[in-house]
Amino acid sequence: MIISKGRKLAIFLTISQGIFIILFGLFVDYDQFRQTSLSSDAKYRATQPIQQDVHLIVFIGFGFVMTFLRKYGYSAITFNLVIACVVIQWAIVFRGLIYGNVFEGKRFTLGIKELLSADFAAITVTISIGAVMGKISFLQLLVMAFIEVLLFLINEWLSDSVLKAEDAGKSIYVHTFGAYFGLAVSRVIYCKDLEKFAKLSKDNVTYESTMFSVLGTLFLWAFWPSLNAGSLIIDQQHRSVINTYLSLTASSLISFAVSAFLNKNGNLDILHIQRAALAGGVAIGATAHMPIGPWLSLLIGSASGAISTLGFKYLTPVMADTCSIHDTCGIHNVHGMPGLLAGFAGACATALATFDKWGETLFEIFPGTAPTIDSYLYRHLHQNASIWEAGLHRRSIEQAGYQMASMLLTVIVAITGGLFTGLFLRIPVWNRPKGQSLFTDEGFWLVSTPVNDDGSGNGHSH
Amino acid sequence: MIISKGRKLAIFLTISQGIFIILFGLFVDYDQFRQTSLSSDAKYRATQPIQQDVHLIVFIGFGFVMTFLRKYGYSAITFNLVIACVVIQWAIVFRGLIYGNVFEGKRFTLGIKELLSADFAAITVTISIGAVMGKISFLQLLVMAFIEVLLFLINEWLSDSVLKAEDAGKSIYVHTFGAYFGLAVSRVIYCKDLEKFAKLSKDNVTYESTMFSVLGTLFLWAFWPSLNAGSLIIDQQHRSVINTYLSLTASSLISFAVSAFLNKNGNLDILHIQRAALAGGVAIGATAHMPIGPWLSLLIGSASGAISTLGFKYLTPVMADTCSIHDTCGIHNVHGMPGLLAGFAGACATALATFDKWGETLFEIFPGTAPTIDSYLYRHLHQNASIWEAGLHRRSIEQAGYQMASMLLTVIVAITGGLFTGLFLRIPVWNRPKGQSLFTDEGFWLVSTPVNDDGSGNGHSH
Amino acid sequence: MIISKGRKLAIFLTISQGIFIILFGLFVDYDQFRQTSLSSDAKYRATQPIQQDVHLIVFIGFGFVMTFLRKYGYSAITFNLVIACVVIQWAIVFRGLIYGNVFEGKRFTLGIKELLSADFAAITVTISIGAVMGKISFLQLLVMAFIEVLLFLINEWLSDSVLKAEDAGKSIYVHTFGAYFGLAVSRVIYCKDLEKFAKLSKDNVTYESTMFSVLGTLFLWAFWPSLNAGSLIIDQQHRSVINTYLSLTASSLISFAVSAFLNKNGNLDILHIQRAALAGGVAIGATAHMPIGPWLSLLIGSASGAISTLGFKYLTPVMADTCSIHDTCGIHNVHGMPGLLAGFAGACATALATFDKWGETLFEIFPGTAPTIDSYLYRHLHQNASIWEAGLHRRSIEQAGYQMASMLLTVIVAITGGLFTGLFLRIPVWNRPKGQSLFTDEGFWLVSTPVNDDGSGNGHSH
Repeated sequence: MIISKGRKLAIFLTISQGIFIILFGLFVDYDQFRQTSLSSDAKYRATQPIQQDVHLIVFIGFGFVMTFLRKYGYSAITFNLVIACVVIQWAIVFRGLIYGNVFEGKRFTLGIKELLSADFAAITVTISIGAVMGKISFLQLLVMAFIEVLLFLINEWLSDSVLKAEDAGKSIYVHTFGAYFGLAVSRVIYCKDLEKFAKLSKDNVTYESTMFSVLGTLFLWAFWPSLNAGSLIIDQQHRSVINTYLSLTASSLISFAVSAFLNKNGNLDILHIQRAALAGGVAIGATAHMPIGPWLSLLIGSASGAISTLGFKYLTPVMADTCSIHDTCGIHNVHGMPGLLAGFAGACATALATFDKWGETLFEIFPGTAPTIDSYLYRHLHQNASIWEAGLHRRSIEQAGYQMASMLLTVIVAITGGLFTGLFLRIPVWNRPKGQSLFTDEGFWLVSTPVNDDGSGNGHSH
Repeated sequence: MIISKGRKLAIFLTISQGIFIILFGLFVDYDQFRQTSLSSDAKYRATQPIQQDVHLIVFIGFGFVMTFLRKYGYSAITFNLVIACVVIQWAIVFRGLIYGNVFEGKRFTLGIKELLSADFAAITVTISIGAVMGKISFLQLLVMAFIEVLLFLINEWLSDSVLKAEDAGKSIYVHTFGAYFGLAVSRVIYCKDLEKFAKLSKDNVTYESTMFSVLGTLFLWAFWPSLNAGSLIIDQQHRSVINTYLSLTASSLISFAVSAFLNKNGNLDILHIQRAALAGGVAIGATAHMPIGPWLSLLIGSASGAISTLGFKYLTPVMADTCSIHDTCGIHNVHGMPGLLAGFAGACATALATFDKWGETLFEIFPGTAPTIDSYLYRHLHQNASIWEAGLHRRSIEQAGYQMASMLLTVIVAITGGLFTGLFLRIPVWNRPKGQSLFTDEGFWLVSTPVNDDGSGNGHSH
Repeated sequence: MIISKGRKLAIFLTISQGIFIILFGLFVDYDQFRQTSLSSDAKYRATQPIQQDVHLIVFIGFGFVMTFLRKYGYSAITFNLVIACVVIQWAIVFRGLIYGNVFEGKRFTLGIKELLSADFAAITVTISIGAVMGKISFLQLLVMAFIEVLLFLINEWLSDSVLKAEDAGKSIYVHTFGAYFGLAVSRVIYCKDLEKFAKLSKDNVTYESTMFSVLGTLFLWAFWPSLNAGSLIIDQQHRSVINTYLSLTASSLISFAVSAFLNKNGNLDILHIQRAALAGGVAIGATAHMPIGPWLSLLIGSASGAISTLGFKYLTPVMADTCSIHDTCGIHNVHGMPGLLAGFAGACATALATFDKWGETLFEIFPGTAPTIDSYLYRHLHQNASIWEAGLHRRSIEQAGYQMASMLLTVIVAITGGLFTGLFLRIPVWNRPKGQSLFTDEGFWLVSTPVNDDGSGNGHSH
């Protein structure tokens, strides 16, 4: 018996939700059941608005950014919503299983911080979707999401807990990982008639679908500082907000300039600019919380804007034509390359950081560099109630090495994982779309077009 | 002399505004004229961002959700704005008259909390508008809004102050009340040629009008936790945010699954999903602040998503055909049934709550169950500076009974009030639209369509 | 050698960015490099959400408000983004140069407060753009922005530091200045064939472009309280939020009423209402933080709504026809006249304020009226830890005079500056658009229209 596409999807989703309910029942409690003290309330208040902003990024920002294909808008925005809902539940559970002590029979707690981590997992998957959007079925997306979240959390745990590397703005763990994972999947599922329908769908970009997409861009732009500052506190959060804004202004300015330079007689492509403008947010992620100087934020933002725009103009077509890597939303230019730039900038800044220049901020940003608990420096500084804990007394250059190692690890996990996931997705059972059903809502959604009764409608009903 | 439609409206609005100015002048002062203390400032800061979120829900969320009818969008969004402005002023005044001691010559104060209450009144009216949208004139909407706010505030006062029932997330007082009031009005103003023009207007839903509507949905989705948590503090607010997010993710997932199951060969109706996704926010309202366990939030959300989607598919058409209840936006599925579900879930959770399991949280959530002031338990616990006040020492099952009673009262007041309001609206003086002018902006707004000069316009000017 | 339009623009932008990076490197440090204390963190938390709201106003609100011309939407929203990015960087540097002690070799600091000030500069420029939108090239906009920010900051400094006038909600320094500067530029660059193409572009306003514009309006509406309260603290911020909401509800209500009254047989123009609704936010700016009474906020809002709607209906066409002042977005009605109304209302409220009625709030709001440091009153009141500083002991009526003087100064600087800037912009080197390229994206942007393959496309590709 062949189960129809819709029913297969429905069953898969319902079973997933059922399992999640059971897993939540077995393992998940509220953080701070009884939290009447005002100080813990203050902590909650410091995180909740940030998490709210990140939620807006996930559901409105990324949702609308992907609606630029006129005939794939319903799918883009609904899939983003539903996939994010699945990923948030799945990431809460799996993260708890990794970090908690469930095998000793303990349950783990769920608070605003855990919701924020789950949002980051959702963003990672959303970025990957950007590379394969329009080319795979919703069922394939779901399977991809489940696998990707697993690998994302394992990679983050390895980098955090084993390498003791830091990635405050998630430029590496989220943006770089999501981009290269998605591109690897896209490579494996490449098929011959793709380009033709991709071209056709691009010709169907309208003024209105572009404006909806721009709306998503501006949401991302305006809330990006919260994304980079989300997991930070006090002065690191403060600096992160300032550096991210500065970097975004520079990447917007320079991406527009580069686009204007390349299209000297006009005919700028607004899709390039609306995305390259965001590169500054990614590229500053790894250094935003460091006291690197506002001018350097502007420089990093400028560089990322230029790289990203050049990528859209020259690299994306080449990747599709010669490497068979088709990148629907150009995520390589917005998240991939700027993510690597962020990693390199972060490693350089780390290597150059000294206790003389940064003071104890060094130990707060890189706990690995903090003095060991039995050292004189530790005892001496902690008389003044410092907030950092004892560390491994790594030298700055050592820490920079670990930062680079975590970046390398991330790229390897992302590409390897993406390739195998892509192979798994080629199993016919997942209802992969082909030919006419690529890049289109039709056949899945009821696409009503108004009757042309008074000449003001948009076309024919069908 | 016959006064034209526009002028009648203008005069009505201007007189209302004039009366409000006088009433504000007579009765309303600022809350905390001089509030330089940092602790009162902290309280303000804890409420203001939440109230801001609720404002976004009122003006952007509900405004855009209702723009899905391509030919009624100007009306939908403007009427929402203006009606909300009227209701906010009217609710501030009338609420102050009920709760204040104005008859002893005292004035009442206006602060962020009062603005939040006024926003809830605006949401109640907006929900009701969802049932009658496109079928009644702006003047009729205004009259309906004035009456509904009166009944809404009286019902809330009876439930709060007389029955001592609790409705933290306003699932009953706002969502259930708004839904059944609106449906009752819709029943009374039903006319024969309605279905024909409703069908015609639905055929005119375009891709773009749907996307604007989805934008509204996502605003509601993303800010809903603030809606449920708005009137709460400390750990109750914290839990409310978490439970609401979880419930929303589950209702989105399950409503998509059910929709896919029912439309097995594709052709999903995006309008159903975009609304049923929100059912989880309503259904969790009454229990979101209780320590019910995260898994139960997922379960309640899942149930509401299923009920809501099934309602759109099967119940709404039946209600229109056999009961003559036409529900333009399907509010029965989003606010009506999920509101009742919330009420039942809340009553069950109340009945099962014990001091053993919840501790003093029980008394904080249900002041009615708190020990009386002269009891040993009260004196004993209050040595540790508890924040709840002496209560009536109701048993949990008793309190659950009062919760059910308040739900019953709400449904009765809503339906009775709606029926009489509907009758009142049938008086011809309110310029009720008929035939061709149903579900259309034309005849009220200047609807310019571009000249088709280069083939890229959308139609003819007229 | 003639440099193409695009390249000239690219070079200009890149050089600007390069100079900014150098200036930031020379002069700008982070505010509070090391800010681990919780009290300074609390201060940051009190400002950051407000600044976030103002950022949304700059990038999403004003961006979308200007997209109402169907054929100029890409330009409107991109230019707004890029110009705001340039202005924010330029305003941070130039403001630091004015207020800092850079000539003594000192650097100045950059924190959330400075970002907020830079946002106000961006809003000022955006308002002016509203008057000239569609009529000048991006290069001209850039030049205008550089000059306007200079004059804006000098005018603010003169009013603040020399006249010791106050403008908490920036009704004068931002809204009035931006409006009259823009109108003066618009007057000078007026050309004969303008009206014809302006008319043509207005005929191309579509339902969808209007809805995008309404989205911008609602963003401005909902976040306006943060705009007026942005630079205030504690009870002044609290009152400012309340008064601004009230004023906005009144202006929305009355502008709708006036519009309905003037168009008695229907055919209301939604563009008028969507803008006049915002007049209340501007008009209350100068008095929002004063304890003037909630009823007066409603009255000021009502008056501004009426003035603004009447302005759209009668004044704007007359200004264009007889004075050759063409105002694309009608900024005179939203920012110009309501700004002046705010100034007059503020001066009246100042003149009538007494220590008897307001208590020390008087000194907090108008530091100029505070007693001098050696007076008995100063010593007496400061025993209770008042937060205001010693002042000039101006009488209220004196302070009102200074308020009026600052308004007069602002209008003079704005108009004179605008006229000279307009003359400067007429130099042919800035690639001023003419004829067919007025009010259109074509020739600058790639405007793809879909292939009409199945009758559902919007037109022809070209």
